[in-house]
Amino acid sequence: MERKTLYNVAVVGATGAVGQKMLETLEKRNFPVGEFRPLASARSAGQQVTFKGKSYTIQEAVPEAFEGIDFALFSAGGSISEKLASAAVERGAVVIDNTSAFRMLPEVPLVVPEVNAHMISQHRGIIANPNCSTIQMMAALKPIYDAYGIERIIVSTYQAVSGAGQAAIEELREQSRQILDGVPIEPKILPVKSQPKHYQIAFNAIPQIDVFEENGFSREEMKMVNETRKILGDESIHVTATCVRIPVFYGHSESVYVETRKPFDLAEVRSLLESAEGVKLVDDLQEQQYPMASDAADQYDTYVGRLRRDLFHPRGLNMWIVSDNILKGAALNAVQIAELMVKSK
Amino acid sequence: MERKTLYNVAVVGATGAVGQKMLETLEKRNFPVGEFRPLASARSAGQQVTFKGKSYTIQEAVPEAFEGIDFALFSAGGSISEKLASAAVERGAVVIDNTSAFRMLPEVPLVVPEVNAHMISQHRGIIANPNCSTIQMMAALKPIYDAYGIERIIVSTYQAVSGAGQAAIEELREQSRQILDGVPIEPKILPVKSQPKHYQIAFNAIPQIDVFEENGFSREEMKMVNETRKILGDESIHVTATCVRIPVFYGHSESVYVETRKPFDLAEVRSLLESAEGVKLVDDLQEQQYPMASDAADQYDTYVGRLRRDLFHPRGLNMWIVSDNILKGAALNAVQIAELMVKSK
Repeated sequence: MERKTLYNVAVVGATGAVGQKMLETLEKRNFPVGEFRPLASARSAGQQVTFKGKSYTIQEAVPEAFEGIDFALFSAGGSISEKLASAAVERGAVVIDNTSAFRMLPEVPLVVPEVNAHMISQHRGIIANPNCSTIQMMAALKPIYDAYGIERIIVSTYQAVSGAGQAAIEELREQSRQILDGVPIEPKILPVKSQPKHYQIAFNAIPQIDVFEENGFSREEMKMVNETRKILGDESIHVTATCVRIPVFYGHSESVYVETRKPFDLAEVRSLLESAEGVKLVDDLQEQQYPMASDAADQYDTYVGRLRRDLFHPRGLNMWIVSDNILKGAALNAVQIAELMVKSK
Repeated sequence: MERKTLYNVAVVGATGAVGQKMLETLEKRNFPVGEFRPLASARSAGQQVTFKGKSYTIQEAVPEAFEGIDFALFSAGGSISEKLASAAVERGAVVIDNTSAFRMLPEVPLVVPEVNAHMISQHRGIIANPNCSTIQMMAALKPIYDAYGIERIIVSTYQAVSGAGQAAIEELREQSRQILDGVPIEPKILPVKSQPKHYQIAFNAIPQIDVFEENGFSREEMKMVNETRKILGDESIHVTATCVRIPVFYGHSESVYVETRKPFDLAEVRSLLESAEGVKLVDDLQEQQYPMASDAADQYDTYVGRLRRDLFHPRGLNMWIVSDNILKGAALNAVQIAELMVKSK
């Protein structure tokens, strides 16, 4: 792709929770969009979306729909990415894929711009957006990794329902009201729509995100393990994750325990985080200041707080990391990757 | 206290979330109650409570109110316990105290019946009920501790609002409805009623339970550290805790990472938990079976699942522990202590 003034952009999955935010983010950040082309599965084609005050009819995502496109942002599920990403690449587009379809392929860069922007130059047409819960953890841990190294991470997540899409948002809303009204509920979406059992999410915590693997970890938990190691380019980091869905609409929270390689100074960690790109330190216990999903929702930054040294391990650090899972965890990170590519031309 | 057929029981804080469950539990478990005497602060005195189908007028908790009482169950806040427990003991009562007032005093046994029942014989009038989040973790970890030893625990909690009392339950209910209706909210209770700032709990996660200490941990987190070591009688155990309030009414969930001292066999851990008193193993990933607050609420047991070995640490074990914080975490544990005392006579 040569340097241009404007770039033709396709968004695949334009009606989804993430797709909608991609449109909003491209607009808000003034991405130099030439032609805008919203795409979706046959089921959603024909619907209208609004971009920069103009209404667009969604076209069906077929190979030919990528003709003339510079950037194709995919967020319509792994199977659609698998089916169509190469068609987009063949037609000259750079694919920025928000699904897990290509993330672990060695030839596909897995990029959080604040962490490993240098990887984008190695792309062969596809750049993968990491999983939401990984992105925010990486944004917060990168300065610590650079200064001290990281030996291990033990993370427990508190994840918003929007990570499971628009239907999960609706389910939480409706179910909450039913429970408050004393009306029987009928869970249909969470924890995993395609699995046989569905459970109450309102006023509950479900320790399942995505399906389970043979080793007893969920696929979401394994994403945090594998993607962390790939993004930091360091296979020596040990990660254990427990991923939990809680009744929050937007904003994942994470309780992260890190053991650094070199000893750290807590005041220095604070100042590293204060000056880190895309990170906001919110950590004043006297003033009861700490990150919360309610504050992080609709914001671009990753919020970090509750920083404290393990009382027993000299290189143990506790922290609380919160970010909007649909923005930094998905749509914003994808747009930032596109911005980086434009800048690097 | 000599062996009797019936015991006179006072419940201090009979109108509270825990006090109410104490009444219910004494009744349900057929505790041999002779005279029943509900007590509370002057503010609540005069109110009516029902016990075994009979209505009782709550008397003010003053020293004389403990005359003739065998068991005094305190759950009306630390300052009331501090003021009145010795008056009850002087009058011959055994105090079972649900507050944190005496828990860490060396002469006060801190008891989870399934874990350290033998400690009750050492009491000098007061037996302390541990903190809710500690009790359920101890019930689940005891069989593992006995079999392999425990080197360290890293725990992140997902705690129900009922732990902050009746007013917090009301706040979550009202605030949830307001947010669903798009009405402005006015937080007044959570995270800590007596502190200056209050935050949204509905559709949010608040990483503060109780006030913060100088070391950056909250008092709730330090309870998990200190009480664990005292209950297991093992000061060599390293504990790091992150305590978080989430929008659940009843049932604390905990993501617990344990490093044992000796290597463990996962199948053996399962069978130990299956036969452990007060514990139910719910761990069948194929059937999407794992513990959830929605199932644990109103139940006596501590539910354990998501058992899996750390992929990188040979003695690292992940687990998910859920129990009703007002029952096993408070009222039930207190009544079980009283039952133990009756049996041991």
